[in-house]
Order: sequence, then C-alpha cells, then structure tokens
Amino acid sequence: MKVLVINGPNLNMLGIREKHIYGTETYADLKNMIHDYCQKEGIEVDIFQSNHEGALVDHIQTAYFNETDAIVINPAAYTHTSVAILDALKAVNLPAVEVHLSDVGSREEAKHNGTQYEQRISGVYRSTGIFKRKISEITITYYKR
Amino acid sequence: MKVLVINGPNLNMLGIREKHIYGTETYADLKNMIHDYCQKEGIEVDIFQSNHEGALVDHIQTAYFNETDAIVINPAAYTHTSVAILDALKAVNLPAVEVHLSDVGSREEAKHNGTQYEQRISGVYRSTGIFKRKISEITITYYKR
Amino acid sequence: MKVLVINGPNLNMLGIREKHIYGTETYADLKNMIHDYCQKEGIEVDIFQSNHEGALVDHIQTAYFNETDAIVINPAAYTHTSVAILDALKAVNLPAVEVHLSDVGSREEAKHNGTQYEQRISGVYRSTGIFKRKISEITITYYKR
Repeated sequence: MKVLVINGPNLNMLGIREKHIYGTETYADLKNMIHDYCQKEGIEVDIFQSNHEGALVDHIQTAYFNETDAIVINPAAYTHTSVAILDALKAVNLPAVEVHLSDVGSREEAKHNGTQYEQRISGVYRSTGIFKRKISEITITYYKR
Repeated sequence: MKVLVINGPNLNMLGIREKHIYGTETYADLKNMIHDYCQKEGIEVDIFQSNHEGALVDHIQTAYFNETDAIVINPAAYTHTSVAILDALKAVNLPAVEVHLSDVGSREEAKHNGTQYEQRISGVYRSTGIFKRKISEITITYYKR
Repeated sequence: MKVLVINGPNLNMLGIREKHIYGTETYADLKNMIHDYCQKEGIEVDIFQSNHEGALVDHIQTAYFNETDAIVINPAAYTHTSVAILDALKAVNLPAVEVHLSDVGSREEAKHNGTQYEQRISGVYRSTGIFKRKISEITITYYKR
C-alpha cells in the first residue's frame, strides 16, 4: 500500500508558530511519527510539504500516475481559499481524507469562508473501502502528535 | 496575429477527471484542435497550462512584452478564487476573453463565490475590435471539443 | 536593523498598469526610493517581489531564520484572497506593517471579500516597539512615491 501525505503552507513552521495552538513538536517530529507508523504497518509513504497551492496540485496529480493508493491531506490555509486543490482531488479520484492539527471550525478565519469550503468538500475528502482502517490510523497518528 | 491561450489548474487532467462533466478528450486533444485552427487561420499561438496561480500571472505579464495581440483564458478553479489573475489582465490591458469547458454558473462551487468574481470581471475579459471574430472562433473551437 | 519589504502580484507592472490609479513611476523607481531611504538611515533592506503566493510565504518564513527585524508588506491582490500569507506572518511573529499604493477600502473588489480579510488581520500587520518610527518612515516613503 502506497500513501501520499500532503501538508500545506506553514506546516513546516510547526513548533515555531503559535505554540499555544499547535504545540512544541516540530514538523520533523511529525514526519518521523508518520514514517515510524507506516514502517511498522508496511505502508510505503511519501510525505510532501509546500507553501505553494500549485505545487500541492501538481503533487496530487502525480499521485494518479505513480499508483498511489490513498491521500492524506492537511491543506492548512488553503482549506479556506483553494478550489484548485479540491478539483485536483476530484480529478485523481483517489480515496482521500482531510486532516487538521487544530479545530478548523473554531478558528477565527473559518467564520468567514472556511465553513462554505468544508461543505463543498464533504464526500470528497473521504476514507473508504479496504484502505479505511489504515488511513484512519495515519490520521489518528497525525492528530495524536 | 499572435494569441496566448492560457489554461488553469487541472485542465492538464482533461479526459481523466470527471468525464461525465468534461468529456473523454484529453488535454493533448484540446491543444491539437487549437493548433490546427490557428495554423489554418495564420494565427501564431502560444498555449500555456499551469496549476500555479503565480505562473499564470507571470505568463500574462510576459504577453505584454512579447507583443501578443490577444489572450484567451480558462482560469478553471482560479475563476472562483483569484484576484491576482484579474489584476494581471487589467495590467497588460490586452483584448482578452474568458472561456470555460463547463457551465460555471451551474457548478456547485459557483453558488458560493464564483458569481461575485464573475461580476467583478465583466468588462475586463473581453473580445473587441479587429480581433473579435478570430478570438471568438478560437473560443468556439475551445467549446466545441 | 534589517528590514524585509515584500511586494505582491503585479506590483512589478507599476507604471504600466492602470496609471490613473497607480501613477507613472515604475517598480524600479519604487525600489530605488526605498533603497535610498534605507541607505540614508543605515537600514539593511531586502526588497522582494513575486506573483506567487507560495513564494511570498517562503520569503516571509526565511525572514525568521536570517534575523530580519521587521517586515513591510504590500500583498496586493493577495490582500483579498490569501490566508497562507497571514498565517506566515503569524508564524514568524515579527513586527510587520501592511502598506498599499491605492485605497484598498475604496476599490471595487474590496466590496466583496477584502473587508473581511482586513478585519481578520487587524492586530497582526503591525509596527511596534523600537522599530516603530523607522518602519513608519519606510511606509511613508512607500506611500509618497
């Protein structure tokens, strides 16, 4: 099983930015945690981070061509502003699940347009079929950091 | 006559993504169709696609400096989210027309913010003067695929 | 003192785009004006422009690691659409001030979503403490062009 984990803008600043919201563990810590879990479970994992919306779209598209089985994505700020990432996920049509490190619904910016975007993607970012348990566990690992 | 045709995010996935909306022809098919039409009409054409909003802005700006006569643009997902692309079109002030492969007004996301953006660009994405017929025909070719 | 001046999309087209709004001075003129002021005041300045939202985020993050003291930013079109840039400014947590060449509040697009963004960033784009006077003066220089 081959999984792509995509992290959006500023997640590389974990442990530096707003520690009261995101904690003191670094992005390297998060990557190590995911790598450890995947190795134990025999999952091949590609972890990708970029501040560029277009680079995230490029990478999602690549997943289609290199036989990735599922996508775990934390779109970060692009959760609230990107339609292109959503279109890319629809285009590749792979099992996908959206994860967040904080409660998006309760954050200030979500009041403005986040909720609309959430409604739009419900049913798209999903975890289904044979991948469900393993993706869920990666997601849980992601949250537990 | 020199025309720039710009295609936004995920249009390179045509024929792969959501075939029930966008059909089975590929992006290569679309490019060939435009190239054939332009060759027949003696139009020099540059067809550019990118998933990066900034790259689309860069390319529109370049059109100003290399004596492009007109721009045909399908901003795709950026139709709904980009102000930078609109500003770039205003900045270069070239005849420009916006095209879409599906009916933007009827798509789900348009309900949320697409319409506002559409209102904002009316009168900016335009086809005028001596270029009108030829640009319109490229646009028609684009739609007919 | 080390200051980063960041200019968003299409500001490199100053003097070309919509002269009735933005004037006839070019982007090179603006840069020279800022360089002259900073040299006179003994401020080390890095002036960066990009049409790419992600590149602006990258550059803001770099400011954290190379001991920049303050940021002056004109997000241009991304004022209205970017949450990632705002998150980057929060992440690096440096004194920062937002500047504009036109009255954002009065521009057409601000009617749609600009104001919401402005509300969101109040208290984030700021000029405080010992940097206040010098940043204010760079800001004034920026406006005076």
